[in-house]
Amino acid sequence: MDQAKRSFLKRSIALIASGLLMSRPKGAAAAEPPEVPPWMKSPGAGFNEYGAPAKYESKVTRTLIRSQPGTTGSGAARTPLEALDGTITPSGLHFERSHSGVPDIDPDKHRLLIHGMVKRPLIFSVDALLRYPMVSRVHFIECSGNSQFLYQPTPPNLTAGQTHGLVSCSDWTGVPLRLLLEEAGVDRSASWILAEGADAAAMSRSIPMAKAMDDAMLALFQNGERLRPENGYPVRLFLPGWEGNMSVKWLRRIKVVPAPIMTKDETSRYTDLQADGKSLMFTYPMEVKSVITRPSHGMTLKGPGLYEISGIAWSGNGTIRKVEVTTDGSRTWTEAPLSPPVVPRALTRFRLPWRWDGGASVLKSRATDDTGATQPERATFIAEHGNNAIFHCNAIQAWGVATNGEVKHVYA
Amino acid sequence: MDQAKRSFLKRSIALIASGLLMSRPKGAAAAEPPEVPPWMKSPGAGFNEYGAPAKYESKVTRTLIRSQPGTTGSGAARTPLEALDGTITPSGLHFERSHSGVPDIDPDKHRLLIHGMVKRPLIFSVDALLRYPMVSRVHFIECSGNSQFLYQPTPPNLTAGQTHGLVSCSDWTGVPLRLLLEEAGVDRSASWILAEGADAAAMSRSIPMAKAMDDAMLALFQNGERLRPENGYPVRLFLPGWEGNMSVKWLRRIKVVPAPIMTKDETSRYTDLQADGKSLMFTYPMEVKSVITRPSHGMTLKGPGLYEISGIAWSGNGTIRKVEVTTDGSRTWTEAPLSPPVVPRALTRFRLPWRWDGGASVLKSRATDDTGATQPERATFIAEHGNNAIFHCNAIQAWGVATNGEVKHVYA
Repeated sequence: MDQAKRSFLKRSIALIASGLLMSRPKGAAAAEPPEVPPWMKSPGAGFNEYGAPAKYESKVTRTLIRSQPGTTGSGAARTPLEALDGTITPSGLHFERSHSGVPDIDPDKHRLLIHGMVKRPLIFSVDALLRYPMVSRVHFIECSGNSQFLYQPTPPNLTAGQTHGLVSCSDWTGVPLRLLLEEAGVDRSASWILAEGADAAAMSRSIPMAKAMDDAMLALFQNGERLRPENGYPVRLFLPGWEGNMSVKWLRRIKVVPAPIMTKDETSRYTDLQADGKSLMFTYPMEVKSVITRPSHGMTLKGPGLYEISGIAWSGNGTIRKVEVTTDGSRTWTEAPLSPPVVPRALTRFRLPWRWDGGASVLKSRATDDTGATQPERATFIAEHGNNAIFHCNAIQAWGVATNGEVKHVYA
Repeated sequence: MDQAKRSFLKRSIALIASGLLMSRPKGAAAAEPPEVPPWMKSPGAGFNEYGAPAKYESKVTRTLIRSQPGTTGSGAARTPLEALDGTITPSGLHFERSHSGVPDIDPDKHRLLIHGMVKRPLIFSVDALLRYPMVSRVHFIECSGNSQFLYQPTPPNLTAGQTHGLVSCSDWTGVPLRLLLEEAGVDRSASWILAEGADAAAMSRSIPMAKAMDDAMLALFQNGERLRPENGYPVRLFLPGWEGNMSVKWLRRIKVVPAPIMTKDETSRYTDLQADGKSLMFTYPMEVKSVITRPSHGMTLKGPGLYEISGIAWSGNGTIRKVEVTTDGSRTWTEAPLSPPVVPRALTRFRLPWRWDGGASVLKSRATDDTGATQPERATFIAEHGNNAIFHCNAIQAWGVATNGEVKHVYA
């Protein structure tokens, strides 16, 4: 940590210790003891077999943005990042992306076929899969189209969740794909697999064998319980760190093949058209990225004083090593402490106290992962990649704070 | 790892590699490709603003056990541990324990008072609390009455969740209590605080100042979203590793005091009557414990072959260092690998492949934490503590497997 950072942190900690921070928030003032509230005067509600959020939180929902007018299940719904904290995404708010809706799959009738270049084609029931040795890991999953609005020439008038909410993070449990491929007697000369979903779109992707034999899993559990329908119930492929669509949901078929299949989902979609007119294909890992979730677009700071800047960072290529934060539009940067445990290919929470003096400010976060990769400024990213594409934008996100406290998305 | 353990693991890995494990599960047999299922023939369901589990999982619920007949909200509901995997508990299945139901608290009207031996009594709104610097940590919380059925002279006819499901684990985010006590100008000679809930029972506990100034937090978020009502919405105290009732829910008052208050909740309850007639009071930390969740009571093994033994371990005193598993009623023990990250005062998942030969077997797990503490056998625990108490039982849990594959709770 350099001298400037150290002094910034020291100053903030001193403010906390002296109570200056504490007396700032409105409402934190000495007063008479509160009256006994009505909810203490009679017994409360009984037990629920399966709980739900408080009714007062009913506005905290996924944002539905349908990509295909006239359809009901083709598009995406985003996680309201600005309303959340920590690193686990509650499954009810995990982002959704589907190409032809969420199939209603009877788990007793679902089958997974492994065939192609194998000695023994195999068919698995879900009950059979549940008997295999499993692994549990906390990982994010991110749609390759996340934060695509940053390709637009003017800043989108959207919240953190609406721009960056196609990323979520769960505790995933499932069977290593390697075990099943080995049981099937995979041909060692085969270098790809095809994965196909049991939705009406038969969503299909080609996947290099090296990934399939490395950390790929057949996920059966999400945050402790069985997968949610919109996340692939009863079984999905999970490829840690790679663009979300490759973690094929409702998995019904794996075919071992000699070369990529060039499915509709990898030719008509999920390629990245560059400024020079060429397209990048098979751009698997999601690059290092971060976003400040609080304060963020749509919030209003209630007067000068101390605030906490809080956000998330992640990298499909490894572990977050550091997150730097600027409050003056990239003139100076301060390293923000990361909340442990910092796990590979998982959301990582950073926090930094910030004393807002009431002037116009521009807040940004810049993440660096353990490969040394760092997020570029938006202008640099667009100069390099153009703005034809909609995928794989990992540019730095900026929030402008106006003198009246209003926070808005800005390009700065 | 000793020679026996190494050879057990080696044998299991060899079976996996040779495909013997893989060909065992029923249903994992080569056959014709599956027909196109009905759910691929038309578009699936649209998006939901807040998701729910698959309808096929509707039997996975909390088990309601009411302690006070005639009341609706006095008792507990348990997490169905045997149906879950990983380490995060979905909030809808987090265990519930309340003394007079779940109050319906309007967060805009809720207030938290800090008073007593302080320079400046303070009252906080929830909005004010949300502006303070926060921390995020993954921690279990366990009711001190968890696994109380093991005090019974005969084995309870109950599932893993019904006996051990008063423990759950979440990603908690909140404000360090220390910050607020410092802002209030806590008298350094005060050595206790009183915490009081805003439920109709005004659930109240005395807490040593050392814990309050150490890792105690005012939790506002649980698994990313705001607290669930049954877990203390809008704000609860959270004392990592200590018996659950002390993490007072619906927190409305903290009074800084010179000595414990001896509230009804610490005199009439939450004391541990020992064999010699004396009672232990203020037994805070939950001791090292573990339970095998699969296979467990109520399941039936479908014939000899390889199975995965999977379970959870935790300690209120620190980090799980090892979990050993026996399949022959404590004659031999094998160390089970732990799923990373292994986090202090959090549920830790262990797994071990097991080849069942079809004979009668007794399965147990034995956890050891980084203080060196290990779970005692049940007979040893009862010999030491008697069976007058209902709290703080951390004895080893045994599941008997009969030759017909049926798994039942046994004392062995």
